[in-house]
Amino acid sequence: MNITPDLLHSGCHAERFAAFRLALERRMQTHMVPPAGAPARLMAASTGAIMASGKRMRPFLVHLAGAGAEDSDILDAGCALEMVHSASLILDDLPCMDDAALRRGQAASHVAYGEATAILGAVGLMNHAFGIVAGMGTDSARRVDLVAALSHAIGWAGLVAGQEYDVNGFAPEDRVGSTVLDRIARVNRMKTGVLLVAAVEMGSILAGHGIARRQHLRRFAEDLGQAFQIADDLGDVTKTAEEFGKDVGKDEGKATLVAELGTDRALRRCLDLLLRAQHSLDAADVDSGPWQWMIGQVFDRDLLAARVSAPRDERVTQ
Amino acid sequence: MNITPDLLHSGCHAERFAAFRLALERRMQTHMVPPAGAPARLMAASTGAIMASGKRMRPFLVHLAGAGAEDSDILDAGCALEMVHSASLILDDLPCMDDAALRRGQAASHVAYGEATAILGAVGLMNHAFGIVAGMGTDSARRVDLVAALSHAIGWAGLVAGQEYDVNGFAPEDRVGSTVLDRIARVNRMKTGVLLVAAVEMGSILAGHGIARRQHLRRFAEDLGQAFQIADDLGDVTKTAEEFGKDVGKDEGKATLVAELGTDRALRRCLDLLLRAQHSLDAADVDSGPWQWMIGQVFDRDLLAARVSAPRDERVTQ
Repeated sequence: MNITPDLLHSGCHAERFAAFRLALERRMQTHMVPPAGAPARLMAASTGAIMASGKRMRPFLVHLAGAGAEDSDILDAGCALEMVHSASLILDDLPCMDDAALRRGQAASHVAYGEATAILGAVGLMNHAFGIVAGMGTDSARRVDLVAALSHAIGWAGLVAGQEYDVNGFAPEDRVGSTVLDRIARVNRMKTGVLLVAAVEMGSILAGHGIARRQHLRRFAEDLGQAFQIADDLGDVTKTAEEFGKDVGKDEGKATLVAELGTDRALRRCLDLLLRAQHSLDAADVDSGPWQWMIGQVFDRDLLAARVSAPRDERVTQ
Repeated sequence: MNITPDLLHSGCHAERFAAFRLALERRMQTHMVPPAGAPARLMAASTGAIMASGKRMRPFLVHLAGAGAEDSDILDAGCALEMVHSASLILDDLPCMDDAALRRGQAASHVAYGEATAILGAVGLMNHAFGIVAGMGTDSARRVDLVAALSHAIGWAGLVAGQEYDVNGFAPEDRVGSTVLDRIARVNRMKTGVLLVAAVEMGSILAGHGIARRQHLRRFAEDLGQAFQIADDLGDVTKTAEEFGKDVGKDEGKATLVAELGTDRALRRCLDLLLRAQHSLDAADVDSGPWQWMIGQVFDRDLLAARVSAPRDERVTQ
């Protein structure tokens, strides 16, 4: 497939996404060329993790939020985000964390390459994300902003914090003044929302959006993240590993919104969050067609179909 | 102690180092203030690792190489490097890597906080290093260069690569065209040299040094790193854990220069490397007094005393 700028900005959403995805994966391969002296096993583990078929939702969000910016910058930012995302999945699956054997339909990294290489691969991928941003074509002021956005998403109120809560729960001082639903929302935000927020932030930085649009897109990403985590939890309880592409039933005994509210109310909350996300998109004054198409690709059709039929007796409050 | 700019640039090396160290550790504490919602246990593990008494050799190298730059920038760059260094030590000690219980005279992070928190703490510290650099006072062009230098040091031909080789050895394709001594030097460079090189590079970037001085300082750091690793290996075979502050005997069975050449020849190589490092300092045209003082603090006095008496029948060639 020959990727022309036209295709990347096609009015046909599926065509546009397919072109973007191919361009992204080609770009990733150029970023995964091993430097001299790099260990073959480490590169195999890292490349395997990053090239494994994922939804590429985060990079596509950079592309959508960054409409108007240079395609090459968007692709680099997308590669960086996908590296961070892949690294977080490698860490999630470790024996000392979720102890999952299956990821994206294949052996988890620690199963295929051993724990040490899996951990070093994850650290290497996160680190490489910063290296990619440092080497991008856009001006250095924007590159610094991108580094800050990425670091914020990974940091002590981001991915590593969400994973810590997920594995070890909340210490008494972490619980102060919060309900169990607050804490579930906090973990969901830290585990999922932060990278979606980083995606729209990076797009906004590259496109030079003003404060108002940036804020609306950030809110969109926050709500999308909460909705996505609920949908993921619903998948965890209702699907088989083969359908879902990763180990299921791993959340048993963990506090999730599905466990707290039950399937029906959790589903309704998910749908309300998606509705509020739509309102943020409208407020951001972007062409929401491709955004909605993406949501349709990521969320289960059955779940979205429930949107029209499910009664809404509960408002999303947090 | 009241840290005045005068003290940071004192002619008395010990006084200057003490002032720098105190200023650095105060700065570190400001960088370790937990953001809202951060997990208490994760912050305790990360702060414990970074504040544990270390030699602070890398930050002091930034200070020396960056003579003339803003003190606050030097301290921030030093904090970033020390975070990366501490993170690499946490990972080194994991059960799936060196499986060490003792570090800097205290329980290793995975022993004190569990494996998951130790890993997340290490990832969080490395990530925070990039966040600190992104927020520094110097102009964005320099900040981007600092991010690139840091990422290069951690990356697939840096710390994570060195650790991969250290744990899993060399695959057949990693060995092509190299001798065992080449490979030991490669691991030593990747495990130790890269962060010393990053230290002088970061100092050079902040001070705006020209290409020639930067190159000499880089060579100095490369040789110092090789010498340091040999001295560390010599410590591993001759000292007790109490003297050394970490588990000893962990290198047994690993290819080290000491194991390959024997103690005497390894010591001579170490001394030759230090001599060559001194020549690079001279060529860099810096005031070498405080640099030599630092080397005297880091290396064993007995080892340096051997410098005058040991016959040199072998030249350093790589």
